[in-house]
Amino acid sequence: MTRDPETTDDPPAADPADAADQRPSTDKPGVDLGAPRWTTDYLPKMTGDADPVRLNMVTKRIRAASASDLSPRRSALKGLADASRLLIDRLVATDAPDDVIAAATVDVSAAAERFSGYHQGTLYGFSEAANAGRREDPLFDHSPLIGIGNPLAPPMTIREVDGVIEATACFGQAYEGPPGCVHGGYVAAAFDEVLGATQSLSGAPGMTGTLTVRYEKPTPLQVELRFEGRLMGVERRKIFVEGACYSGDTLTATAKGTFISMQPGQFLDILAEREARQEDQR
Amino acid sequence: MTRDPETTDDPPAADPADAADQRPSTDKPGVDLGAPRWTTDYLPKMTGDADPVRLNMVTKRIRAASASDLSPRRSALKGLADASRLLIDRLVATDAPDDVIAAATVDVSAAAERFSGYHQGTLYGFSEAANAGRREDPLFDHSPLIGIGNPLAPPMTIREVDGVIEATACFGQAYEGPPGCVHGGYVAAAFDEVLGATQSLSGAPGMTGTLTVRYEKPTPLQVELRFEGRLMGVERRKIFVEGACYSGDTLTATAKGTFISMQPGQFLDILAEREARQEDQR
Repeated sequence: MTRDPETTDDPPAADPADAADQRPSTDKPGVDLGAPRWTTDYLPKMTGDADPVRLNMVTKRIRAASASDLSPRRSALKGLADASRLLIDRLVATDAPDDVIAAATVDVSAAAERFSGYHQGTLYGFSEAANAGRREDPLFDHSPLIGIGNPLAPPMTIREVDGVIEATACFGQAYEGPPGCVHGGYVAAAFDEVLGATQSLSGAPGMTGTLTVRYEKPTPLQVELRFEGRLMGVERRKIFVEGACYSGDTLTATAKGTFISMQPGQFLDILAEREARQEDQR
Repeated sequence: MTRDPETTDDPPAADPADAADQRPSTDKPGVDLGAPRWTTDYLPKMTGDADPVRLNMVTKRIRAASASDLSPRRSALKGLADASRLLIDRLVATDAPDDVIAAATVDVSAAAERFSGYHQGTLYGFSEAANAGRREDPLFDHSPLIGIGNPLAPPMTIREVDGVIEATACFGQAYEGPPGCVHGGYVAAAFDEVLGATQSLSGAPGMTGTLTVRYEKPTPLQVELRFEGRLMGVERRKIFVEGACYSGDTLTATAKGTFISMQPGQFLDILAEREARQEDQR
């Protein structure tokens, strides 16, 4: 995989990186212009160059998400999501008669009603509740792609191996686009998640700027797909990553992403710090 | 919006268009090389140039999907999917106690069990069943993005207005990525659906070649988002389309897509013909 500036070096219109980079640098010897809000410590780095402490913090989420030992609470939430996945898998395009549809609707409505009046965690306020000991399920359990507790997620699994992000996903019947194949939109969604994890290997993750997916072959349903993500380059606050999706040995799609590293104190950074603290307290 | 060949004019590696275009053309005067499998009638055309009969066939799906009058069967399937959507919306990151989770899991498992032993439609074999009078729910009801009968779909609505594709979607809590925002992967997925509908306006739709999404601003949850898709150009079998996503007046993301028109007789064409026939028989 090579980096192609024509397709990836293309920042969003409102690129805060430009403003940030025009600030005076404190690296210049003999010049002290006061404490800058942005220092080179927080710029993305290539593999092996990032500050180990910071890298450890921003990649903790990936390691935690791939852990297999679940607390009873997380197992219970996963159990409910798994039951919902089975339901969705079976109800889509079913030929069951009308009375079966009606009875199932009553069951599912009753289940939904049970949650009426309870609160939900959102990313804001979620970690506070965890830190106060009121909840132990981490944020990523609820992701619409990797969340074991979110029925929308297949869920994908994701981990880092020797500086490469490896992910797997098996999309069932409900994700069908072309006959027997994963809907192209969900292939793109999976890449967004994989490349989002990949850019964190720079030590200074941020938000997606652009995502380009190239569909090489149909991506089959009901098969364990394998995704790879690699950090390809950094340039000031831009992070360039690439990914690939395989079904067996067949390359079905590739992707390129440009991410814009966020300033310390912006919400992704706050969340990473809080999640790391939450992990440490277990 | 302008077409940028550097980012969109980039066919998949195995591009069948090249092989097709090397076949002798019957347009050459005085030369008859027999019946070609590929004629200019099936090449994509710009708005206003496509054969009306063919355009009517390949866009029937869009008109049918935006119809508001549902048969009792389709309403029942939508009702079950809506109950499932409510369940998913409420269970994600809930703080309900363990006994509520357990009771809901029993409800949902019972609902899933009701479908055991029944068959599901897939794109293969689906239209045959419809044509034989065994089912009346059209394919698009089960799409993971626009399907009213698929709990994975928000669902999006989609329609054509004066040669422009207009779509809406409201993503709930379960689709959260950044705090309060739609996961970037689902923004990309929505664009794939919108641009897929847009390319059919060429009269000769095909498969996604590349999809590029550019994230301009955060895309909010719980808001009716508005998508637009426009046919920007055709070049042999390639179709160039562009899209935009708005929250109110704010442009949150843009997208470009390149699609490769498929040969008549390939599965998308067969499906379009069958769906059109199915519609006519109602």
